[in-house]
Amino acid sequence: MPDSYTVLHERLAEIHDLGRAGALLAWDERTKMPPRGAEARAEQLATLAAVRHRMFCADEIGRLLDRVRAETKGEPADSDRAALATIVGRDWQKARRVPEALRAEMARASAIAEHAWIEAKRESDFAALLPHLQLNVELLRRFADCYQGFEDFSHPYDPLLDEFEPGMRTHQMRDLLADLREGLVPLVREISQRPQLDDSCLRGEFPTEAQRELILQLLAELPLEQGAWRLDPTEHPFATAIGQGDLRITTRYDEDYLPTALFGALHEAGHALYDAGVDPALERTPLGRPRSLGVHESQSRLWENWVGRSRPYALRLHPRLREAFPRSFDGASPEDLYLAANRVEPSLIRVEADEVTYNLHILLRFELELEIVEEKVELSDLPEAWNARTERYLGLPVPDDAHGVLQDVHWAAGSIGYFPTYSLGNVIAGQLWEEVLSELPELPRQVGAGELTPLREWLRDRVHRHGRKLTPAEILERAGCGPLSVDPLLAHLRSKYGELYGGDPGR
Amino acid sequence: MPDSYTVLHERLAEIHDLGRAGALLAWDERTKMPPRGAEARAEQLATLAAVRHRMFCADEIGRLLDRVRAETKGEPADSDRAALATIVGRDWQKARRVPEALRAEMARASAIAEHAWIEAKRESDFAALLPHLQLNVELLRRFADCYQGFEDFSHPYDPLLDEFEPGMRTHQMRDLLADLREGLVPLVREISQRPQLDDSCLRGEFPTEAQRELILQLLAELPLEQGAWRLDPTEHPFATAIGQGDLRITTRYDEDYLPTALFGALHEAGHALYDAGVDPALERTPLGRPRSLGVHESQSRLWENWVGRSRPYALRLHPRLREAFPRSFDGASPEDLYLAANRVEPSLIRVEADEVTYNLHILLRFELELEIVEEKVELSDLPEAWNARTERYLGLPVPDDAHGVLQDVHWAAGSIGYFPTYSLGNVIAGQLWEEVLSELPELPRQVGAGELTPLREWLRDRVHRHGRKLTPAEILERAGCGPLSVDPLLAHLRSKYGELYGGDPGR
Repeated sequence: MPDSYTVLHERLAEIHDLGRAGALLAWDERTKMPPRGAEARAEQLATLAAVRHRMFCADEIGRLLDRVRAETKGEPADSDRAALATIVGRDWQKARRVPEALRAEMARASAIAEHAWIEAKRESDFAALLPHLQLNVELLRRFADCYQGFEDFSHPYDPLLDEFEPGMRTHQMRDLLADLREGLVPLVREISQRPQLDDSCLRGEFPTEAQRELILQLLAELPLEQGAWRLDPTEHPFATAIGQGDLRITTRYDEDYLPTALFGALHEAGHALYDAGVDPALERTPLGRPRSLGVHESQSRLWENWVGRSRPYALRLHPRLREAFPRSFDGASPEDLYLAANRVEPSLIRVEADEVTYNLHILLRFELELEIVEEKVELSDLPEAWNARTERYLGLPVPDDAHGVLQDVHWAAGSIGYFPTYSLGNVIAGQLWEEVLSELPELPRQVGAGELTPLREWLRDRVHRHGRKLTPAEILERAGCGPLSVDPLLAHLRSKYGELYGGDPGR
Repeated sequence: MPDSYTVLHERLAEIHDLGRAGALLAWDERTKMPPRGAEARAEQLATLAAVRHRMFCADEIGRLLDRVRAETKGEPADSDRAALATIVGRDWQKARRVPEALRAEMARASAIAEHAWIEAKRESDFAALLPHLQLNVELLRRFADCYQGFEDFSHPYDPLLDEFEPGMRTHQMRDLLADLREGLVPLVREISQRPQLDDSCLRGEFPTEAQRELILQLLAELPLEQGAWRLDPTEHPFATAIGQGDLRITTRYDEDYLPTALFGALHEAGHALYDAGVDPALERTPLGRPRSLGVHESQSRLWENWVGRSRPYALRLHPRLREAFPRSFDGASPEDLYLAANRVEPSLIRVEADEVTYNLHILLRFELELEIVEEKVELSDLPEAWNARTERYLGLPVPDDAHGVLQDVHWAAGSIGYFPTYSLGNVIAGQLWEEVLSELPELPRQVGAGELTPLREWLRDRVHRHGRKLTPAEILERAGCGPLSVDPLLAHLRSKYGELYGGDPGR
């Protein structure tokens, strides 16, 4: 007779496998699927969601969890078994509140809306997306309603945020973003009064195939296991783990503007490095995935910005770019490349935004999400509301919805509560980088020499391996970073851009 | 309260969706997956198999089937509801005999062995595959043992064959292949005494990318729905349907020999056309898939050989080949191409075999499968047994196992009972072609003009739309082809190759 933990583990492993199958279906949908397959794919994703939900919500899982909790009473909270019982116990309580039909409907609507979004964005036609958006939001309302009286949820946004950032509450996120705004707005203003940096070397003609080869080379130089990942083009880049040894990185190529694919791929590779670093002992359990999107995003942003947009990395990148695109880089020095890669300029597209203005894009999305959830804005008025906020935070008029409210897939995919985790990721990355730099003073030299394994090992030890066992706060605490704080991020930005733009912006 | 049929349909639709997810996982494994992902993928496939099996074998499904059978007593046997109750009822009886753990183990072992096979074939190292083969065969024995006393199963090969060709028995297949052998052996002998046809235009330098573009163009000219299919390279070509509007065709490129990819792709497109033609009303039910592999193969062989290797198609193909590969085709006439595409020559590799000797490849495999199942051959002696039979049927020495027993994936993938359906497919294709030609006398002209929709419509009406509702015998009967018979195939080969090789071979 196998013990409760073994039985529970087997059940959860099956559910995990179905989840990975769903991840592959979603990856395929966004990278390979013939367009006419969208409808069948939506059904398949809905079925996988429904079956997983049913299997997970079974009474038997609850009984097994109870037993494992009882059996592990004396164990440290972060033992694999005790952590599983606690964390999955909460998952189970949460999942049981949501009817299976709603889960399936959300998966189906999301898959269908994602395809409508691609069309709507291409045509800059918000009206075409609107009914899908309305359905998604209606389903999210019903989802949020399932959590009345759950824990300390007090705002209708709480259950949505908790899906992506378990344990974080709306008011905490609001405070965090307010702190960021206070630091960033004067910094952006100061920078805007300085002479602008020249980024012309990054604008030109960059054939997709040449970009792809360059990026494959750069990714191969990251400490990613050989034969354990692949790179594909997509409309809205993402990274996903299909299983141990099977990471999927995607990117989008802009033939006129190099950073889109280049830094985008480094960003997604950061996600992949995180996924690859989870302790194999947690594999095929609900703990074998990253804890929160905020921590996940801290990894992607760290590799994209702290590594990728650093001076040492620019030095390393320069000869490769010159070889791939001599017309653009024969006349640009490594320092020119470094400056170009860090030009700060309010822009319309979030994923192409510089490190400094990026969080303003998040701020406007977070505020709109709150208004949607609080029913303070009609969905049909979203473009107007979007454009007004873009004017306010970025000082830019929005020429069309493709460059405005339609630019991101998240809302179309039924994800509200996701965006603010991007800024949280920046904040956490700032804290982790400050710490790793103090522990590995050789890091800048190593980045320049392409010796990136020490950084990966540090991150793996402090962050990746824990999977979902530790909360973001615990991860930061144990890593020596103290409590969550915007200060390291703001200090990093002030110091870096102070040097780049001259003077002492933002102080 | 929904009626029994509706509830049953919902349950079966879920199982169907999980099956399609499994098909995508398998497609991905063979076309996209990073090699290090093999282990996790095997677990995922095993889980999908186990969960589907569990869901399908549930008592509830049996009760619903009983009820639907009772409710549909007065309906014609080929009504959607009655056919579902009968055919799925048999599926259920069969499935209930197999323990879930065995199903999962078979899926896992198959996925792992397939990867071992790729390596083993590359290194021509049979010993590396042997333990996987032993496990697969052991599992198949246990599987076959589940069917003691089932229907009229009397040979241990019966349950294996029935998986791919439901209703057909070992002795029937043995007789059919004996008939074929009797007709083919003298034909091959006669041809071998004639002056050989020149196929030098098909041997040369054919860069993969140019082949791919050509094949994409040819497939686009087939009556496949636009935006509903894709083409990818793979090691062992196949076609699979992931859902309505989502067909995956694969092919293998040989840069020295054009027919491998060219006729291989037409072959797989024939499978895809079948999958695309099933009545949408049967979608997401167990009837929404082709009935038997024999009928499936009849479609692929029909498009590959009766269409693709016909004189009118060669005429149509010629200018395209000349444009893509001027060095090879500037000096070859359309008639040269036709002759080259139909050169008969005993060879080592089944998938590259000509139309006439092809079935000898199947014969040797079928005989070996029977010996394996009857425990008349040790698996470790398979290479020897293979080589001896290749000598006997094809008159060729086998230089290494990569060109012998390791050439096909089937046994590695745990499929015994699959091979003979290829010859069955040729036989059925012969019958269907004879009939369609008598009904559509314009067909050869249409093929030459690229008007392939009338052929597809005829096939769709007589074969495709029925899905699993009709048995192969019923399909042939209703299509006007009479009972299963090797005569039309043999007559086709005698007439075609009689003209090609001069004289009157084979009579």
